[in-house]
Amino acid sequence: MPDFIVTPWEVSGEVDYDLLIQEFGIEAIDEKLLFNLKEITKEIHPYLRRKIFFAHRDFKWILQEYKKGNPFYLYTGRGPSGNIHLGHLLPWIFTKWIQEKFNVDLWFQLTDDEKFLFNQSITLEETHNFGYDNALDVIALGFNPKKTYIFSDIDLGNTFYRNALKIAKKITYSTIKATFGLDNSANIGQIFYTSIQTVPAILKSLIEEKNVPCLIPHAVDQDPHFRLSRDVLPKLGYYKPASIQCVFLPSLQESGKMSASVENTAIFTKDEPDVVKRKVNNAFTGGQANAKLQRELGGNPSVCSVYKYHFMLFTLDDNEIKKIQSKCIGGELLCGECKKDLIQKINKFLSEHQKQREKAKDVLEDYLLKEKVDLKSLINEKKRKWNY
Amino acid sequence: MPDFIVTPWEVSGEVDYDLLIQEFGIEAIDEKLLFNLKEITKEIHPYLRRKIFFAHRDFKWILQEYKKGNPFYLYTGRGPSGNIHLGHLLPWIFTKWIQEKFNVDLWFQLTDDEKFLFNQSITLEETHNFGYDNALDVIALGFNPKKTYIFSDIDLGNTFYRNALKIAKKITYSTIKATFGLDNSANIGQIFYTSIQTVPAILKSLIEEKNVPCLIPHAVDQDPHFRLSRDVLPKLGYYKPASIQCVFLPSLQESGKMSASVENTAIFTKDEPDVVKRKVNNAFTGGQANAKLQRELGGNPSVCSVYKYHFMLFTLDDNEIKKIQSKCIGGELLCGECKKDLIQKINKFLSEHQKQREKAKDVLEDYLLKEKVDLKSLINEKKRKWNY
Repeated sequence: MPDFIVTPWEVSGEVDYDLLIQEFGIEAIDEKLLFNLKEITKEIHPYLRRKIFFAHRDFKWILQEYKKGNPFYLYTGRGPSGNIHLGHLLPWIFTKWIQEKFNVDLWFQLTDDEKFLFNQSITLEETHNFGYDNALDVIALGFNPKKTYIFSDIDLGNTFYRNALKIAKKITYSTIKATFGLDNSANIGQIFYTSIQTVPAILKSLIEEKNVPCLIPHAVDQDPHFRLSRDVLPKLGYYKPASIQCVFLPSLQESGKMSASVENTAIFTKDEPDVVKRKVNNAFTGGQANAKLQRELGGNPSVCSVYKYHFMLFTLDDNEIKKIQSKCIGGELLCGECKKDLIQKINKFLSEHQKQREKAKDVLEDYLLKEKVDLKSLINEKKRKWNY
Repeated sequence: MPDFIVTPWEVSGEVDYDLLIQEFGIEAIDEKLLFNLKEITKEIHPYLRRKIFFAHRDFKWILQEYKKGNPFYLYTGRGPSGNIHLGHLLPWIFTKWIQEKFNVDLWFQLTDDEKFLFNQSITLEETHNFGYDNALDVIALGFNPKKTYIFSDIDLGNTFYRNALKIAKKITYSTIKATFGLDNSANIGQIFYTSIQTVPAILKSLIEEKNVPCLIPHAVDQDPHFRLSRDVLPKLGYYKPASIQCVFLPSLQESGKMSASVENTAIFTKDEPDVVKRKVNNAFTGGQANAKLQRELGGNPSVCSVYKYHFMLFTLDDNEIKKIQSKCIGGELLCGECKKDLIQKINKFLSEHQKQREKAKDVLEDYLLKEKVDLKSLINEKKRKWNY
């Protein structure tokens, strides 16, 4: 029994990604796949070389169809129950790269309904508002405005509900129990929810009235949802959605992933420079007890959260990261210097991100898709028809 | 199936009602309640005197609030999986009476989603279309167009989904299992569905942004849904919906209720006069083997489906029904004559109903509430915003 848990609602312990590949039945991304990709994209994103995006379902097929002139669209999303931290950005940064390289649409889902159903203490209005706030971070990353649609589940509630019904009819409670480990104390919204998360995988097919391949870049914990999507959608005449899956950004503490619910383990996109400085300075490292020992014995980047931040977000140049690694192991680089470097890089990134985030407020509405729903005005319209 | 469709004056029927009343925890409608009602309505509908509407939840409170100047609105509905038969009309005829006497709004729900989820062989488009067809029968009964709102669940899918979420969060799978007897092989839409059926009980409160009492006239089989509504809605700050409940119109065969799925046991609103004639002539009666025996021994109206049709729909005058009853028991009235009388009455009713049903086609759209949802045009609008 592995001592880690990965479900869409809980990630804990030291995740063994090789084991997860077996358990989930996903495929590792291999050199041949990267070769095929590079034929189209001309370059390979560091996240692929570094196995941050490490697994997939049917990505090969996506590339084949693309080459045949049958392009895909991207679908990813966010469960909006709090502020955005750096860990959330990983899949989005990669999604943006795919969007640019393939020049395709992105449908970005804010699962306010999910967060409402799975979090006892939050209201639907709160998750909905977090969604709009979180969307600013998405926009700040620079997604192509002409090709990016952001929507909350309840903003497209009519489209979602009527299509989720068809999906829900094909999924039994037994399957939900087996797939997500929900039990009889689960609320009936939680049980139904996965059918909503499948809908964006067919939205473009619905609009274009023909089957359009869908590629879902996502953190690997969401795989169970899309496993069900892949079971059900062919029964309704749609393609199976493909996916490409990433690991989690680790916590600044010794273990676990970065989590919005443990404030000091995560750096948020709204954090001020001094907050970043404090958090990184308090981070768990692979260093020795003091500078003298570090110089003698060297550090251990493979357990070091500071190194992982360099590796996964802030030192994407391969030569540069190799230098950090070898200097650390060799005792030339002390934790203090390494942290200082990371703090500078994070604050440089956040300074620009926060600027873009402010600008995003002016264009947010233009990214959002919302059904126009107003029962009051429907009733007034009816009243006019009957002349009263 | 208990013999509960009997004259209100027969003991065997009373016993079965008591059982149901105990089992559901509903209250019998008593003389005092009818007295209170009559103070407002000035008369009592035969369905109440005849205990066709026989039970309620909080109807007393509805009347008290009404007297205090806090009027209720009506909510009832239809699961649209086929054509309308006479049994479906019972609660609607009574609902119309309440609407007239109290001059209140009616919200009429077409549960296309429910029928889709619970019926393996029907598509969502089919149940949706049945809904519009069935709505013609509702309109044909003469509901006040200025005070009647008809809507399908998917037509108001956005409003429904976002409000159902709040209800669903308060209901566990265990409760669904205990209340409806659904098991692990149930699809997840079926499990979620009851939260949708609760939404119309708060729609007017949502629109008016204050609590509005809701009265639900319905056939007693729907009580489990509204029992849950009554559990959950106070937790969300709403009133418990009140209800008033009727029995089923029996089959034209020896037992069972009239059912759309067994064609010859039911008279449909679209039936032609000769079809009605054939069905009634083949009906099960309480008569003797031949006319001679009937004259000697008399018939038994308490088991007679023809008598029940007179009693529940077509002979609502108390003196007239007593005459039929006593002449039958006394052997003066033969089944052939009694059937002939019923056929005439049904065909007279259907001739008018079918005329009104045709007229209803011209005004259907004016009764319907529909959210305007068109993803394609949302996208085109967005494209205009970004100038491409």
